[in-house]
Amino acid sequence: MTGAESLIRTLIASGVEVCFANPGTTEMQFVAALDKVEGMRCVLGLAETVVTGCADGYARMAEKPAMTLVHCGPGFANGIANVHNARRAHTPMINIVGDQASYHRSLDPPLTADTEGLARAVSHWVRTSGSAKQIASDAAAAVQAARTPPGQIATLIVPADVAWSEGSGPAMPLPVTPRPQVASDVLRTVAQVLRLGEPAMLFLNGQALSEAGLAAAHRIANATGAKLRAATHVPRMARGRGRVPVDRVPYVVDTALRALAGLKHVILVGAKPLVGFFAYPGKPSLMAPQDCATHVLARPDQDAVAALEELADEIRAPRVMQVEEAGPKPRIASGPFESEAFGVTLAALLPENAIVADDSVTSGRAVFSAMFNAAPHDWIQSTGGAIGHGFPCATGAAVACPGRKVICLQADGAGMYTLQALWTQAREKLDVVNVVFANRVYKILYGELRTAGATPGRASDTFFDIGRPDLDWVGLAKAMGMEAVRVESLESFADTFRAACGRRGPFLIEFLIHKWNESFD
Amino acid sequence: MTGAESLIRTLIASGVEVCFANPGTTEMQFVAALDKVEGMRCVLGLAETVVTGCADGYARMAEKPAMTLVHCGPGFANGIANVHNARRAHTPMINIVGDQASYHRSLDPPLTADTEGLARAVSHWVRTSGSAKQIASDAAAAVQAARTPPGQIATLIVPADVAWSEGSGPAMPLPVTPRPQVASDVLRTVAQVLRLGEPAMLFLNGQALSEAGLAAAHRIANATGAKLRAATHVPRMARGRGRVPVDRVPYVVDTALRALAGLKHVILVGAKPLVGFFAYPGKPSLMAPQDCATHVLARPDQDAVAALEELADEIRAPRVMQVEEAGPKPRIASGPFESEAFGVTLAALLPENAIVADDSVTSGRAVFSAMFNAAPHDWIQSTGGAIGHGFPCATGAAVACPGRKVICLQADGAGMYTLQALWTQAREKLDVVNVVFANRVYKILYGELRTAGATPGRASDTFFDIGRPDLDWVGLAKAMGMEAVRVESLESFADTFRAACGRRGPFLIEFLIHKWNESFD
Repeated sequence: MTGAESLIRTLIASGVEVCFANPGTTEMQFVAALDKVEGMRCVLGLAETVVTGCADGYARMAEKPAMTLVHCGPGFANGIANVHNARRAHTPMINIVGDQASYHRSLDPPLTADTEGLARAVSHWVRTSGSAKQIASDAAAAVQAARTPPGQIATLIVPADVAWSEGSGPAMPLPVTPRPQVASDVLRTVAQVLRLGEPAMLFLNGQALSEAGLAAAHRIANATGAKLRAATHVPRMARGRGRVPVDRVPYVVDTALRALAGLKHVILVGAKPLVGFFAYPGKPSLMAPQDCATHVLARPDQDAVAALEELADEIRAPRVMQVEEAGPKPRIASGPFESEAFGVTLAALLPENAIVADDSVTSGRAVFSAMFNAAPHDWIQSTGGAIGHGFPCATGAAVACPGRKVICLQADGAGMYTLQALWTQAREKLDVVNVVFANRVYKILYGELRTAGATPGRASDTFFDIGRPDLDWVGLAKAMGMEAVRVESLESFADTFRAACGRRGPFLIEFLIHKWNESFD
Repeated sequence: MTGAESLIRTLIASGVEVCFANPGTTEMQFVAALDKVEGMRCVLGLAETVVTGCADGYARMAEKPAMTLVHCGPGFANGIANVHNARRAHTPMINIVGDQASYHRSLDPPLTADTEGLARAVSHWVRTSGSAKQIASDAAAAVQAARTPPGQIATLIVPADVAWSEGSGPAMPLPVTPRPQVASDVLRTVAQVLRLGEPAMLFLNGQALSEAGLAAAHRIANATGAKLRAATHVPRMARGRGRVPVDRVPYVVDTALRALAGLKHVILVGAKPLVGFFAYPGKPSLMAPQDCATHVLARPDQDAVAALEELADEIRAPRVMQVEEAGPKPRIASGPFESEAFGVTLAALLPENAIVADDSVTSGRAVFSAMFNAAPHDWIQSTGGAIGHGFPCATGAAVACPGRKVICLQADGAGMYTLQALWTQAREKLDVVNVVFANRVYKILYGELRTAGATPGRASDTFFDIGRPDLDWVGLAKAMGMEAVRVESLESFADTFRAACGRRGPFLIEFLIHKWNESFD
C-alpha cells in the first residue's frame, strides 16, 4: 500500500467523508488511492478557491472536518483566500497538498514554489511528510489538529516520492481534546459584573451563536438587562422564528460606535475584542467606548454554551423564556430592489430549515435584521473579508446537508471571484438557489473612498464600476449548466424564488439593481 | 501630498505606465492618487490572478516593468499563481499591496493575514513601507529591483496609515545595473568545447530567444554542428518565417530523454540545467545524458545576445546566414481537431507580427513545431506551470501592443481558472482572438495518472472529466460582453478565425474537440 493510500485510509478512519479537490500531477497518487478505496465522496472545483470555499461551507454545516486536495505551490495559493475565511471561522480543515519529489525539488523545476511558506501564512498547523512510513500518522495528526477546538487549518504537504513509496497502512485516529470548560471563578466574576446593573453587552461569536448558546444568552439578557450582539461576520448562526433575535455589530465604524455607545461592560463569549474592520484617519480602532471594561466569559476555544448556561443559572435567570418577536413582519414587498424590502420578502418565502450563505456585501446590509421572523434557518457568511465566499460556501453547505435548501446571497463583484462554483453545483445537482445582486459596481469601495475623504474620478470609476460591459449572470449560469432567470422587481423576485424553491436542484436569480438606493450603513 | 500620491508619482517618473488592479479598502489612497495624477493607464481585472497575469503579459511585450495594485492578504494571495509564472519568466513586476494600518494590524481585525509572508514566498524583493516620508524612495527601490536583470518580482506592502499620511513627494528613479557581460575566458572555453566536434546542444532561454539571440545561435550551430533547443516553456520567443526555427525540449520525460540522447555537451545560454517538470518513479530528474557535460555560456541575468554574437565571432562563424525552412508547410487542414493540423492551419492564417499567448496544454503539444513557417510572430507562454495564464497574459500583451493582433491559445480546463480576463478584454476593446480548446477534460492528468502506473477509476473520472455538465464557452464569452462562435472542424475554424482577424476587438472561438485524438508526447 502506497503512502498516499495509507493517508486516504487514515482520513476515512478519522471521520473525513468528502474530498473537495483540484489535483495535479504531484497529487496523482492520492487520486489513484481514491480510485481504489471506498468511503470518500469526491467533489471537483474548477479553481482552488472554489475547492477551499466549498470545504469551509461543508465543515461549518456538517460539523465534521473538511478535506481539500490541491496542487503544490500556485495551486494551494489559488485557494488561500477561502482558507483565510475558514481560518477566521475556526473551520476544521485539512489541506493535503502534493509537492515535488524530495530529491527533485532541489533542482528547482519550473513548478516549484515555497509551498510550506504559503501554507504557514494561513494555517495553524503545517507539516511536510518526511517518509511514506510516517504519512499515515501525519494524516492522523492533521485531523487531530483540525479538530482541536475551536477548529483549525491543518495543511499537510506530501512530496510525490513520499506519496508513491510503500506506506505503513492506515493509522488510528488520534484523540481530540474537548473544549475546555470555563472556570467557576470566571463565571462568578462575570455574574458580579452583570449584577452591577451597569450598561453591559454580551458579544457573541462561534459556538455562542448556536441555538442553545443564544437561548442561554437570552436568559441572561432578560434577567440582567444586558444587550446581546453577534459578531459582524458570523461563521454560523441559528436564526428565524423561535430563535433569539440577536443583531450583528454593524460593519461601518460610525454606526458600530453608535450601537455600542454608553456601554460600561463588554463580555466576550467565544469572541475576540471588537475591532473595526479597517482603520480610518481620526476614527478609533476599538469599537467599545474608551471607559468600557472588557471581560472574557469564554475564549473562542472554550465551551461557550456551557458557560452561558452556567452563568444563567448562577444569576438565577428563569429557565424557560419566551422569545419576543423583533424586527419587521415578513411580507412580499414590491418595486425595485431595496435591501430591507428584499430581506422581508426573503423572510416571507424562506423554506423551513434553510441555510443562508451570505456574501452580499452592501446589497445585503439590511437583509440580516429584516429576517428575524423568517422560518428557522442557519446563517453562514464570509468571516475573513476575502470576497468570493458565497457561491463556494453555499456549494459545500449543500454537500453537507442534502435535505436542506441552501440560499446563496451573492454580490456580483464578489461573485465573479468564484463563479466557477456554479458549475460544481450543477454537476453535483445541489439544492441551491443563488441570488446575485447585480448592481454592477463595487459599491462598497465608493463608500470607502468617501470615508477616505476623496471623491471619485477617472481611476475610481475604472476600478469600482464593473459595468461597461455589463455581466450577464443568466448567461454565465446557463453556460455552466444551471437554470437562471433575471428579475428587476421584488414581486418578480418573489415569484421566481418561490418557483425555484418548489423544485430541487441549483438555480440562479440575477436581481438587476438599477439604482444605488441602498444605504451604506 | 499623501504617501500614496508620492508613490504613484514616483512610479510614473520611473517609467511605469499601466496599473493593473483590483484594489480594496487598504488601497483607497492609491486610487484617490490615481484619480488625481495623470500618466498612468488603469486596467481592472475582476480577480487578482487576472490582474497579475495581465501584468506578466504586458511586461513581456512592452519590455517595461508592469505594476499591479492589489488588496492585502487574500487579495495578493489570489494573484500568486500568475506572479509565480511571471517569476519564472523573469518578468519585471512591481506589486503594490495595501495592508491594515500599522497601529490597527496588531488588533488582528478579520482581514489581517501574513501579507509579508505571502509576498516573500513568491517575490525576489519585499519591503513594507515604514513611513509616509519613505514611501517614495521605497517605490523607486521597487522599480529598481524589478528592473534588475534578468527581471524580478518586487512587492511593496504599504500600511494604510503610511499611504494616507503626508509624504515626501516623488523620488527620483534609481539607476539599474545593465546585464553583466560574459567574461572572455568563458567564451573561449565554450568555443573550445564546440571545436571538439562532439555532439553538443545550445540550450536557450530568456534573452537568447530574441531574434538577435537566435540569429547568433544559428551562426554557431551552422559553424559547429551544435543543435539548438529552447526551454520547454519560453517566456517570449521570436518565431515565424525568416526567424531561426528552434524547437523546444519536449515536456514528456521520455520524449525529452530521446531528444537529448547522445549529447556530450549542453551549453546553457540564459537557461538553467534541463530538469524534468515533475519526477516519476524510475525516471531521471535531469534530462541530459549522465555522461554529458554542462557548460554555462550565459547565466539568465547576463547579456546572452552579446555572448552568442561574440562566441559566433570567436569561432569565426559566417556573419550572414540563410535560415533554412523547417517544419511543415502552412495549409488549411480539414476535419476534426488534431494538434498538428491545427498548427499548420493557424500558421497559414496568422496575421503578420501577431503575438501568440499559449496556455493550450495537451491540445497545443504539436502546434509550436507546426508553426515555424507562419508569418513572423512572438510566442509567449506560461512558464511556471501555474495554469490559467493564457487569457490574462494575452490581455496584458494586447494592452502593451495596441497595433498587433494577439492570439490566445487556451485549454478549457486552464481557461476556467481565469475566464474573468475575457471581461477585461471586452472592456478595454483589446484586439485578441481567443481560441479555447474544448476537449472537456483535464487530459494531461489522464496521461500523468497512466505515467504513475494507475488506471482511471471513479475518483479520477470525477476529477479529470470537466464535462457533465459541458461548459458553453460561447455563452461564457457572450455573458462577459465578447462575441464568440463554436466550431467543430478545422475548415470552419479557418473561416471563423479569418473573419475574426479581419476585424478589431476581442473574439472567442470555442473549438469543440470530440475525441481525444491528440498524442500525449
